[in-house]
Amino acid sequence: MEMQVGADSLQLPRPVYIMQTASVVGKLEGEGPIGDCFDMVCADDRFGSDSWESAESEMQKEALTLALGKEGLQAEQVRYLFAGDLLGQDIASSFGLLDFSRPIFGLYGACSTIGEALSLASMTVAAGYADLVAAVTSSHFGGAERQFRFPIEYANQRPLCSTWTVTGSGAYLLGTKKTHAKITGVTTGKIMDLGVRDAQNMGAAMAPAAAALILNHMKDFARKPEEYDAIITGDLGSVGHDILVELCQIGGCDISQNHYDCGMVIFDHEKQHTCAGGSGCGCAAVTLGSYFLPRIISGKWKRILFIPTGALLSPVSFNEGQNVPGIAHGVVIEYEP
Amino acid sequence: MEMQVGADSLQLPRPVYIMQTASVVGKLEGEGPIGDCFDMVCADDRFGSDSWESAESEMQKEALTLALGKEGLQAEQVRYLFAGDLLGQDIASSFGLLDFSRPIFGLYGACSTIGEALSLASMTVAAGYADLVAAVTSSHFGGAERQFRFPIEYANQRPLCSTWTVTGSGAYLLGTKKTHAKITGVTTGKIMDLGVRDAQNMGAAMAPAAAALILNHMKDFARKPEEYDAIITGDLGSVGHDILVELCQIGGCDISQNHYDCGMVIFDHEKQHTCAGGSGCGCAAVTLGSYFLPRIISGKWKRILFIPTGALLSPVSFNEGQNVPGIAHGVVIEYEP
Repeated sequence: MEMQVGADSLQLPRPVYIMQTASVVGKLEGEGPIGDCFDMVCADDRFGSDSWESAESEMQKEALTLALGKEGLQAEQVRYLFAGDLLGQDIASSFGLLDFSRPIFGLYGACSTIGEALSLASMTVAAGYADLVAAVTSSHFGGAERQFRFPIEYANQRPLCSTWTVTGSGAYLLGTKKTHAKITGVTTGKIMDLGVRDAQNMGAAMAPAAAALILNHMKDFARKPEEYDAIITGDLGSVGHDILVELCQIGGCDISQNHYDCGMVIFDHEKQHTCAGGSGCGCAAVTLGSYFLPRIISGKWKRILFIPTGALLSPVSFNEGQNVPGIAHGVVIEYEP
Repeated sequence: MEMQVGADSLQLPRPVYIMQTASVVGKLEGEGPIGDCFDMVCADDRFGSDSWESAESEMQKEALTLALGKEGLQAEQVRYLFAGDLLGQDIASSFGLLDFSRPIFGLYGACSTIGEALSLASMTVAAGYADLVAAVTSSHFGGAERQFRFPIEYANQRPLCSTWTVTGSGAYLLGTKKTHAKITGVTTGKIMDLGVRDAQNMGAAMAPAAAALILNHMKDFARKPEEYDAIITGDLGSVGHDILVELCQIGGCDISQNHYDCGMVIFDHEKQHTCAGGSGCGCAAVTLGSYFLPRIISGKWKRILFIPTGALLSPVSFNEGQNVPGIAHGVVIEYEP
C-alpha cells in the first residue's frame, strides 16, 4: 500500500483505533451548550491548585487518569505520551504528566497541538512502534490571558473578533485494539503567514492555514468535501469560520454544508460573552472527544476530517512586531463497523 | 524483527541515514576549541537582525539552507520538518522555517529537543512515511538570558555551576539514501524530578534523567557501555558530568572512560569564562554534527549513543516555585561501511 499520499499526506499502513478519550473542563465550559458531554467539570477553575498553570497541569493529569480508568488500563501500559499546551516551554504538560513516568515527546503547534499529537501518535502506532500511546493537550483561560494578553484584573475590553481560551484538557488513548473509531490518514500543515498582525484576531490568522490544509488534503487523497460527514476545525471562531469557507470556495472546495468549528460549538458565544468563540489547545481536544466522536462511534458519521488550528505567536514575537502565522494539522477519523 | 525493545526503546525496522548536517554558530562558539569545525561562524550575534530572537530564526534558516545546499537538494524534497528551540512558543523555529513551506512538527524538549527531533524524524523515515526529512534546533545566548535569567545589561554574577547558552543552530537531513552514518535505535526519555530548585544549576537538574536514559538504554538493548565508542550527552557541563558518571556507577554502568558532553567540548570553559560549559538547544545539535559525527563517518567510531538533555522549566514555572525537572532523549548512531 502506498503510504505517502500526495505532497503532504499519509495513508496509515494500518488503522489506529481511538481506544478511549476523556475530557476535563472548567466552569464556563460546563455551562455551555455541550457542558453535559464532558467527563468532568470543575466548579473551581484552579482545580485545587494555587496557580492557573498548576491547575492546567492538574487537568492534564485528571484527563489522562480518567481515560486510562475508563479503559481499565495502567499508565505503565502506555508506551509513549505525545503532549503539549499553549504555555511557554510546555510547562502544563511537563508538570501535568511527570507522575505518569512514561517516555514523552513534548510538542508545540499552538492550538493545533492536539492535531499534531494525534498525527504523531497514530503514525507511531501504525508503524508498529507501540501498541498503546496517549495524546494529551490542555489550555487554561487564566494562564493564557496572563501569557498572551492582559492580566484579567485589568478588565480590558475584548474585541468581538477575539476568542476565549478554553479551560480544559483532552486525553486520547490510541492503539491497535479494535474500536468503532479509527484514524486512517494524516495531512500535516505548513506554517502560513499572510501578514496578520492582530493577536486578538486569531481566527483570521489561522483560517488561511486551515484552508490550505483542506485543499491539500482533498488533492492528496483525491476526495471531495462531500465525502466527509464533517470537516471540523479547532478554534477559528465565527470570524475565522467565515474566512475559511470563503477561502475554500476560492480554492474550489465547498465546505459550507459540513464545516463545524469546535470554538463555535463549545460556547454559546452570545449568551456566554465569549466573542467569536472558544480557542486554545484544550478547545479542539475536549470538543472532538466529547461531542463529535460519539457520532463516529455510533456510526451516524462515517468519516470526518479533524483539523485543529494554531496561531504561532509568543508574547516576545508579538511585542517585537512579528506577524501571527498560522498552522493546521489534519487527521482523518473513520467509523469501523 | 522486533521493533519495540525493552520498555523505552525502539530498534528501527530499517536504518535511517544521516545524509547531511550543517552548523551555524555565533562568535564565542567560533573562538572555542572546535570553532574550526562549524560550517558558518557569524561575527555578529545578531546575524543582521534587529533582535536576538530574529537572529536565532536566521540561524535556523541558514543551517537548513546550508545542509540542503551541501547535498544539492531543494526544500520541496523534504517531506517533514521536525524542529524546536528554547524560546516560549517555539518562535525561533516558527519564524526561521516559515519560508521553507514544508509540513512541520513543532517540538519542545528544552535542550534535549535535537534528540527528540532526531528520534521522531528517524522513526518517520524508518516507517516509510518519508524518504527525506529534516531535524533542526537552535538556541541563542541573548534570547535565552532574556527569557530565563537576567537582562544581560544587569551584568549579574554567574554561579560556577551555571552553563552558557550556545548561540547556534544545527540542521540534519535524514533519509533512506545510504551514507556512512545511520541511526539504528531510539530510547525515549521520561520526565524526572529529583527536587532541584536552582535554575542556574541545570547540570544537576538534567543529570538524573541522562543517567536513567543510559541505564534504561543498556537494559533495553542488553548492551554494556563499552560497546559504545562514545556516550555523548548534550549539555550537562562539568557539574552535571560528575553527577552523571556517579549515578551511572551506582546503577552498575561505568561510563567514565567513554563519556563526552557537548557542553564541555564546545567551550574552553576556563579561558572563555563559560562556567560549567555550554548549553541550549543548539549546543548538542552543532557539536554532534561538526565535531563527533565525522568520527563516525570516517569509521574511527563504530557506535555512539547521543543523549541531548533538557531542563523543563519556564520563567513562569520557576517564579511560581516549581522544581526544575529534567529529560533526555537518546539515539544510537552507527558507522555504515
